[in-house]
Amino acid sequence: MTVATPIVTFLSDFGQADWFVGVVHGVVATICPAARMVDLSHQVAPGDVARGAFILEAAAPDFPPGTIHVAVIDPGVGTERRALGVRARGQVFVGPDNGVLEWALADPAAEVRVLANSQLFREPVSRTFHGRDVFAPVAAHLACGADFTSLGPAARDQVRLARPATRHADGALRGCVVFIDHFGNALTDLTAAAIAEAFPATTESDLDVRVLDRRVRGITRSYGDAPIGTLVAILGSSGRLELAEVGGAASSRWGIGPGDQVEVRPRVEG
Amino acid sequence: MTVATPIVTFLSDFGQADWFVGVVHGVVATICPAARMVDLSHQVAPGDVARGAFILEAAAPDFPPGTIHVAVIDPGVGTERRALGVRARGQVFVGPDNGVLEWALADPAAEVRVLANSQLFREPVSRTFHGRDVFAPVAAHLACGADFTSLGPAARDQVRLARPATRHADGALRGCVVFIDHFGNALTDLTAAAIAEAFPATTESDLDVRVLDRRVRGITRSYGDAPIGTLVAILGSSGRLELAEVGGAASSRWGIGPGDQVEVRPRVEG
Amino acid sequence: MTVATPIVTFLSDFGQADWFVGVVHGVVATICPAARMVDLSHQVAPGDVARGAFILEAAAPDFPPGTIHVAVIDPGVGTERRALGVRARGQVFVGPDNGVLEWALADPAAEVRVLANSQLFREPVSRTFHGRDVFAPVAAHLACGADFTSLGPAARDQVRLARPATRHADGALRGCVVFIDHFGNALTDLTAAAIAEAFPATTESDLDVRVLDRRVRGITRSYGDAPIGTLVAILGSSGRLELAEVGGAASSRWGIGPGDQVEVRPRVEG
Repeated sequence: MTVATPIVTFLSDFGQADWFVGVVHGVVATICPAARMVDLSHQVAPGDVARGAFILEAAAPDFPPGTIHVAVIDPGVGTERRALGVRARGQVFVGPDNGVLEWALADPAAEVRVLANSQLFREPVSRTFHGRDVFAPVAAHLACGADFTSLGPAARDQVRLARPATRHADGALRGCVVFIDHFGNALTDLTAAAIAEAFPATTESDLDVRVLDRRVRGITRSYGDAPIGTLVAILGSSGRLELAEVGGAASSRWGIGPGDQVEVRPRVEG
Repeated sequence: MTVATPIVTFLSDFGQADWFVGVVHGVVATICPAARMVDLSHQVAPGDVARGAFILEAAAPDFPPGTIHVAVIDPGVGTERRALGVRARGQVFVGPDNGVLEWALADPAAEVRVLANSQLFREPVSRTFHGRDVFAPVAAHLACGADFTSLGPAARDQVRLARPATRHADGALRGCVVFIDHFGNALTDLTAAAIAEAFPATTESDLDVRVLDRRVRGITRSYGDAPIGTLVAILGSSGRLELAEVGGAASSRWGIGPGDQVEVRPRVEG
Repeated sequence: MTVATPIVTFLSDFGQADWFVGVVHGVVATICPAARMVDLSHQVAPGDVARGAFILEAAAPDFPPGTIHVAVIDPGVGTERRALGVRARGQVFVGPDNGVLEWALADPAAEVRVLANSQLFREPVSRTFHGRDVFAPVAAHLACGADFTSLGPAARDQVRLARPATRHADGALRGCVVFIDHFGNALTDLTAAAIAEAFPATTESDLDVRVLDRRVRGITRSYGDAPIGTLVAILGSSGRLELAEVGGAASSRWGIGPGDQVEVRPRVEG
């Protein structure tokens, strides 16, 4: 799983106004100068574990095998919450045991360790900044060759995120909006794979999408297929059904937000 | 044009709250680990091609020969708009054919290619994220030695930005404010070179600058030449005439904004 | 003081919407490709020297010996203000002579040089962007082996920040809130060392903290020791007494801001 120049991604709720992100970069650069650090986002709202988990799930598949992901959305720092390392899906994930590593833990083949080997920590470990003292050092040691099994004992009973399941019933696939991105696109929990499985015999253009009181006719292959201002349904870059406005921001223009129900079903011409 | 550690700059309208910028970094690091990635800005308003083009024009001259610039302000992704590579001014520019590469295209010696060689892409190419799937991979391959001519066929008839020309008539040089920077400085389209050409016999301190209903006496050599709170005209770090307030923000204090006309003429004492 | 891969940190008030931060990265990468650049923050309010000085003081101890820090909060660029290099505390600090390097200068063993060796500059030096033309090039040359004494002549009489001293009198240690971080934690100028020196015989849990009209009972060892919503006093990750709300933002919830007086004294049960 080792790559020549290991990539270490970094996701947090630290913001970028203070010095916390920089210090974490410094810790990794000091322990493992060969590691290439890539920031995913530091603008997750403080403590918003679900949003952090979604970003990690959306981004991780775009990174190569062997990538190490550090996710520090950690409102429970200083409590008894555990720190975890997870080897899953060909990559390694490091973060608190609060659900932020949901995507890694959802891999049935995931191996999970409690971060307990203090030789991999930055000592003394502070009470309030485990990003600097635990997660980043562990990730840096992994990037420079530390063995996954050296992190600590195998873990059980991790905290998992409760997510409403998508449902396929009565001829429709139902899910909901889970994320509004910077462009105002509304990402849903309906994946391209789930849609294809639910409607194996129907082409995308014959699948209608309903959100709020609107019906979008067909899943579009490209923004270019419809005029500016049109609300379209499209399979986005992370493999999820998205609601987007051509040339605009679907979220603010059409009032679509997280939790809104979305339904996909084959068109019945009437 | 090769440098030992090639620099790849990255400009976008992605914001930094989502994972898009990080994924692009990951793609470049994976294809060309030796490349040094430098972010110019990701806070261009979605689809603001003109602002992106200005930032690229202002920043690129400060980078060394051989630098590769990736500019993804790409509201037309998924339409028929072309993707371009431009070799100009000793550097290479990669981005959509919508005007964001204006400064490169304005070089009479520019060589332009359509990005058509899918061996340089990240497959499968998504419909909505060519930053990840087309522009970044092409830039990374260039950084690690791919030949410019391998990008695709020579291109003609690129989209160019319509910019009002500066005018030199009736003893005055006239242009306008084109950019307000983070400090509230108002950058104009009047360059130091254009001013020197228009008034070869006049020293800067004898050139007055008029903006809105205000006359600024002389082009100042330094902020330090005038008291705090003074509106001054100065030749800024990117070689353009700027209106600045000493110790303050000219834009908000004096109500100066993009499009405001600016006039430079030799002082006539009366 | 040389390290294999020297770290160059970068702190400024440039914001990240324009191209200024990117250009500084490019200058360092060009002069010293081996240097590892780490951004501390670019969101210091324009000209807020005191905030920049605090961030540098809080962050620098977390970086290894030999790190070079570049701090460009420089409202006096273009005036007669000097540019300094300071070797102190095992690291090197580069920035304007306006107090932003206070923490380095407060080291009695600090060596201070005026940046006067134009061979280390980027020529021509602009009137408005010494981050690009003076500070970054000097830092890059230092990172790649330039000798500290080559920067210029020894300097005297640096600008120092006036900071109210903490006071230990009448059985209490008094200081004030100096920084509100991204999480709404209120950092004070009372250090763990000062508290231990003032009350050598008292355990942390027996020290009460008063801020505004509130009394916090004991200095807590961890957020986990108190229920959500509790205002606690804790020794934070940079070794300062902080006022924090468990699971919340102390600043907005309790109305605590910079300058508010804070008092620590042993509890007297009554």
